[in-house]
Amino acid sequence: MADLAGAHREFFAVRTVAETLAGFRPARRTAAETVALGEAHGRVPCEPARAPHDLPGFARSTVDGYAVRAADTYGASEGLPSYLDVAGAVAMGRPAAVAVAPGAAVAIPTGAVLPAGADAVVMVEHTQEAMPGTIEVVRPAAPGDGIVRADEDAAAGAELVPAGRPLRAQDLGLLAAAGVTSVRVHARPRVAIVSTGDEIVPPATDSLEVGQVRDASAVALAALVRDAGGAPDPRGIVPDDRDALDAALRAAVESCDVVVVSAGSSVGARDETAAVVAGLGEPGIWTHGIALRPGKPTLLADCGGVPVIGLPGNPRSALVVFRLVGMPVVRRVGGVTQPPPEPSVRARLERDVPSAAGRLDVVQVAVRDGVATPLFGASALLSILTAADGYVVVPDEATGLPAGREVDVTLYR
Amino acid sequence: MADLAGAHREFFAVRTVAETLAGFRPARRTAAETVALGEAHGRVPCEPARAPHDLPGFARSTVDGYAVRAADTYGASEGLPSYLDVAGAVAMGRPAAVAVAPGAAVAIPTGAVLPAGADAVVMVEHTQEAMPGTIEVVRPAAPGDGIVRADEDAAAGAELVPAGRPLRAQDLGLLAAAGVTSVRVHARPRVAIVSTGDEIVPPATDSLEVGQVRDASAVALAALVRDAGGAPDPRGIVPDDRDALDAALRAAVESCDVVVVSAGSSVGARDETAAVVAGLGEPGIWTHGIALRPGKPTLLADCGGVPVIGLPGNPRSALVVFRLVGMPVVRRVGGVTQPPPEPSVRARLERDVPSAAGRLDVVQVAVRDGVATPLFGASALLSILTAADGYVVVPDEATGLPAGREVDVTLYR
Repeated sequence: MADLAGAHREFFAVRTVAETLAGFRPARRTAAETVALGEAHGRVPCEPARAPHDLPGFARSTVDGYAVRAADTYGASEGLPSYLDVAGAVAMGRPAAVAVAPGAAVAIPTGAVLPAGADAVVMVEHTQEAMPGTIEVVRPAAPGDGIVRADEDAAAGAELVPAGRPLRAQDLGLLAAAGVTSVRVHARPRVAIVSTGDEIVPPATDSLEVGQVRDASAVALAALVRDAGGAPDPRGIVPDDRDALDAALRAAVESCDVVVVSAGSSVGARDETAAVVAGLGEPGIWTHGIALRPGKPTLLADCGGVPVIGLPGNPRSALVVFRLVGMPVVRRVGGVTQPPPEPSVRARLERDVPSAAGRLDVVQVAVRDGVATPLFGASALLSILTAADGYVVVPDEATGLPAGREVDVTLYR
Repeated sequence: MADLAGAHREFFAVRTVAETLAGFRPARRTAAETVALGEAHGRVPCEPARAPHDLPGFARSTVDGYAVRAADTYGASEGLPSYLDVAGAVAMGRPAAVAVAPGAAVAIPTGAVLPAGADAVVMVEHTQEAMPGTIEVVRPAAPGDGIVRADEDAAAGAELVPAGRPLRAQDLGLLAAAGVTSVRVHARPRVAIVSTGDEIVPPATDSLEVGQVRDASAVALAALVRDAGGAPDPRGIVPDDRDALDAALRAAVESCDVVVVSAGSSVGARDETAAVVAGLGEPGIWTHGIALRPGKPTLLADCGGVPVIGLPGNPRSALVVFRLVGMPVVRRVGGVTQPPPEPSVRARLERDVPSAAGRLDVVQVAVRDGVATPLFGASALLSILTAADGYVVVPDEATGLPAGREVDVTLYR
């Protein structure tokens, strides 16, 4: 029973999740590439993008109204309006054809060019037509009212978007406004996904022999890799055989930026994986054990700069670990320095959650009307994860959480 | 000045955001299509997917240990262990070759098939080898300990994933485990994006004439459409001309599931858009005004079941409205009945936020160390939105929020 003997051995370096996130930092980063703006959503700039010129580039009206010299409206009120001669109108999208002289006003729609001479725009609601060609202004305007300056959205050379933060919808909008139609971004990290185990068969296997299990992890991990900005590279199923595993992982490390391997569910299979990973490159294994439940038998290695992540064999533990530890690694390799926020919600625990001090417990919960119901069950059950709306983390130092406690639930999406 | 006269007219039906989300419900839904599991992440099932057979399909061990008859371990302790004969071992992925007779145990790795006769698995940590071929069990096991039942993850016919909830990573995993390798989902809603305005030019325009503005909204809206599960169909820029707009919107309504049009920034352009939209199909305009800032001049119409969304001309207002009101519409057309959660965080307001009662105010904020700093500035400025980490909603009934108030910040990602 070589398989069982291993269980008595201590993992040689169990780390906390916090230590892992802070300390496991293989050097690999993806190269830069140029993408068109329309393809850049969620991509990670490898340098700040700057404004080629002032934005909007001309002083614009922000309201429908009249361009004026503010001084002409000082003291204006309903009882004592300022009277101004309407000298003309500005058309959208064109330079203003008329200037605003003292005592004059020029009609202007929202977004149009401020005419020369004007330093404010009064809203049409604050004016009345006194007689054809003359308006009454019933409220005073200060210089700058109702306009944006030529460089107010961005001055030439200003940073439009920072490096390291995935591009959001509004970032694309500002880049488009500035005429920046392509962006230098990090290439998507190519993430090898290797499944192992003599019992594992492809999902398309129509009917199973007793003892066989379809590969549930690979397709789910691929989805999480994409969420983290990576390009999944599924490598299929490798039998529990050292040479086969060695060949598969060696090829993966050579051609990918991150390697994820389901390390087998039994102690023997995990030991085998660790032995193979240890030979893949320097500095090698960083930890073989994380103070995390589920997910303790996680293996992390730095193989010549390429992160290799050995996940527990059961799909539920594998997904928990990959969310907590794997996705941050993929993001970092892809140049992310400002990770996007996770959805979360506050809720009250419906029941006590037991836990042991010294490890972080991830408890699946369903959330309804502000109440988080813990979903217990064997860690082999994937249905617990599909029934869950999110998870609650019981911190390392806690020995559990009492019913009624308000907790942060990280939500799945 | 036809442009200005319109400003004095009341919008004919201003609605609150809550009324809009509840009440604006054009009938359009996309058709069903079949996608492979690997392409199904985020897609929306149009019917529940069910388990074709029991999962895992056989009773499995969840630990490394020994399959036993639980009754043989009753009363076992360190001082008085139960002695069991080791009758053999189960190999991964194969039916168990030996049965467990009374007084016997069979070695079994995590995930392997439970042998006949056994009703529990004791962890190897709770056993010791007494002599070759015999183990001591030092803790009692109850029936069911250390195993999952053949139908514990899902019984044949059970719902694996519901209709209407976008598929998450773990949902794909459970479907793969069950051998469900394709899913019936709603087609992605095709969303026309029409930009209007004589001042608007394509983002690739190298140098601008004074008064021209590059189209910032289209590329940003396309990103939000994708986030909502839709397929953006950018239709380019239409000049402020009723016939041109009519032709463009008519074609969009005929070939798309949702139509989004930037309704122009001036009152005249907005009135023009409303007049055209009113003629596109029954029942027509549902509201021309939402009690929302920014975003009041929003137009919503139901044109023969196709939602038509007229957005404010300035990109920042357009993006705020589209997030609040447009994305839910796109999701609904795409069959979503359980929308994914939005990321949010609690923070304390750094300063007072003024607001008027009777409308919902959307205030952009930067968040650092639990403090939300409101970012004020003309609604024409897109840079306020790129500087923001998220937004705070000041409810309809409030007249502002005081500094120090704890608020929920919806975070951008």
